[in-house]
Amino acid sequence: MIIYSTLKLGETAREVLKEWEVSYDDSSDAEVILAWPTQVTQILDRAPKLKYIQTFSAGVDGLPFDKLPKGVRVFSNAGAYSLPVAEHAWALVLALAKMVNRRERNAQSYMLTRKTLLVIGCGGIGSKVAQIGKSAFSMWVLGVSRSFKSQDFDERHSINELPELLSRADVSVISLPLNKHTRSLFDYKMLSCVKQNSIMVNVGRAELVVEDDLKKVLLERPDFRFGTDVFWRKNGREEFESELWSYPNFMGTPHTAGADSNREVFEEAVLQAVKNVRTLLTTGSAQNEVKVEDYL
Amino acid sequence: MIIYSTLKLGETAREVLKEWEVSYDDSSDAEVILAWPTQVTQILDRAPKLKYIQTFSAGVDGLPFDKLPKGVRVFSNAGAYSLPVAEHAWALVLALAKMVNRRERNAQSYMLTRKTLLVIGCGGIGSKVAQIGKSAFSMWVLGVSRSFKSQDFDERHSINELPELLSRADVSVISLPLNKHTRSLFDYKMLSCVKQNSIMVNVGRAELVVEDDLKKVLLERPDFRFGTDVFWRKNGREEFESELWSYPNFMGTPHTAGADSNREVFEEAVLQAVKNVRTLLTTGSAQNEVKVEDYL
Repeated sequence: MIIYSTLKLGETAREVLKEWEVSYDDSSDAEVILAWPTQVTQILDRAPKLKYIQTFSAGVDGLPFDKLPKGVRVFSNAGAYSLPVAEHAWALVLALAKMVNRRERNAQSYMLTRKTLLVIGCGGIGSKVAQIGKSAFSMWVLGVSRSFKSQDFDERHSINELPELLSRADVSVISLPLNKHTRSLFDYKMLSCVKQNSIMVNVGRAELVVEDDLKKVLLERPDFRFGTDVFWRKNGREEFESELWSYPNFMGTPHTAGADSNREVFEEAVLQAVKNVRTLLTTGSAQNEVKVEDYL
Repeated sequence: MIIYSTLKLGETAREVLKEWEVSYDDSSDAEVILAWPTQVTQILDRAPKLKYIQTFSAGVDGLPFDKLPKGVRVFSNAGAYSLPVAEHAWALVLALAKMVNRRERNAQSYMLTRKTLLVIGCGGIGSKVAQIGKSAFSMWVLGVSRSFKSQDFDERHSINELPELLSRADVSVISLPLNKHTRSLFDYKMLSCVKQNSIMVNVGRAELVVEDDLKKVLLERPDFRFGTDVFWRKNGREEFESELWSYPNFMGTPHTAGADSNREVFEEAVLQAVKNVRTLLTTGSAQNEVKVEDYL
């Protein structure tokens, strides 16, 4: 069994996979690929024996699902970034609530304590976001998810209740995967449902939100504040240049929540990915198997 | 017994003091003054019967202590702003940790989970800051204080241990009152003790920190990030214009943590002040009596 990895594994990660051969330059005999999603397209043609893909990223929306040979199983790295991304989501929420680094004295501060938090997508990140809201700010926590990974939700709802939930939430955090069910979920109609003086933060993927509709709502509703770590892809690449930076009710970060901006986070994430591969090769199943049909 | 208030009290606040006469224009028979500290100087000469001062603010450093008639007792509004100011402190900490609204992709994110938090001044604000750090981010919490108001401290220290504590803390939050013991505490020597890749936030008073020394350390240590809600007074007024805004490792807000930026916070704070006056007039003692000698 040969594993092909697009990243040179560190000592600790290599040790986890010591029972298997790991190649960094030849995928021709590889049955497992360890890669970032967008790297997979160019590997596929040169990996005829491929059985499993394990991504380094939590999101797998960048994978070429339509080109995957039938029977190839995909495993995401969901959960590997829960702590840093949840911290990051709260950084955006709080910066918007308190208008950090905006020098006008007339900006209103929004209070968080005992307000209502809505978490949209309650996997590893969303569950940690909920736990912080509950423990730090005694918030009432609403969750929207297919499956809940924690006990920190006061109410559990399904995605078709979103309009009503948005009208109740003082803070909402989007931590959904991007797939055929969630793409463009936040269009003009949905965004218009948000409560007066509320904050929304997106740490999922930009394309969950319709960019032009967001701009329209932010211009119409100066009381509504929006933050994002993720930006819309143009020609396949995230484009961080955006008119939004000039909006007074917008704050952002250029996709720095995850592995790119902290060495420790990156190494932990790689380690989780290789551990999952080890579990898979040892037991035949592993965490975070992706429902391929969600993306087709 | 006549109470003189510089603020017209709302209905709820007035109800709390219904047993006493409240004047808004004549202090000549007043035994109690309800005011912001800087308003007191001009009232003193026209309040010959003065016994008690209750401030609307938590800090009393703006009072003319040297001009107070002997025997006048002073009560601060400490605690009234604990929740909003603690939220605000965390907004600055997180914004600096994640470099919110800085568009450079190369800025390093600092992780908070399981790191060390140092709270300097553990009254109402500091205790809430500690509780958030512990519950939201599982931090190890060091406290420096004369008296501790909560159980959320893993270690309790005195102010003379500050240099060593600063060298251990990944995040430090200053929530001290400004008095003769604390003014200019954070000079070049003290600030130079901070740990590599650490964050310091000041929500007390600017003059706890020596402005020029701070600038020097921020220029020398790009890894050190500093945030403040409070600015140095020039000619008696907080001056929000500052070179610091242009520093890449600085973030701020123009004293918007407290009463000025949220109506609800303001009304709650006024209510706490009048309740304290009620307690004082009914029982002869009350919360937050100020040690006048700390300021002389």
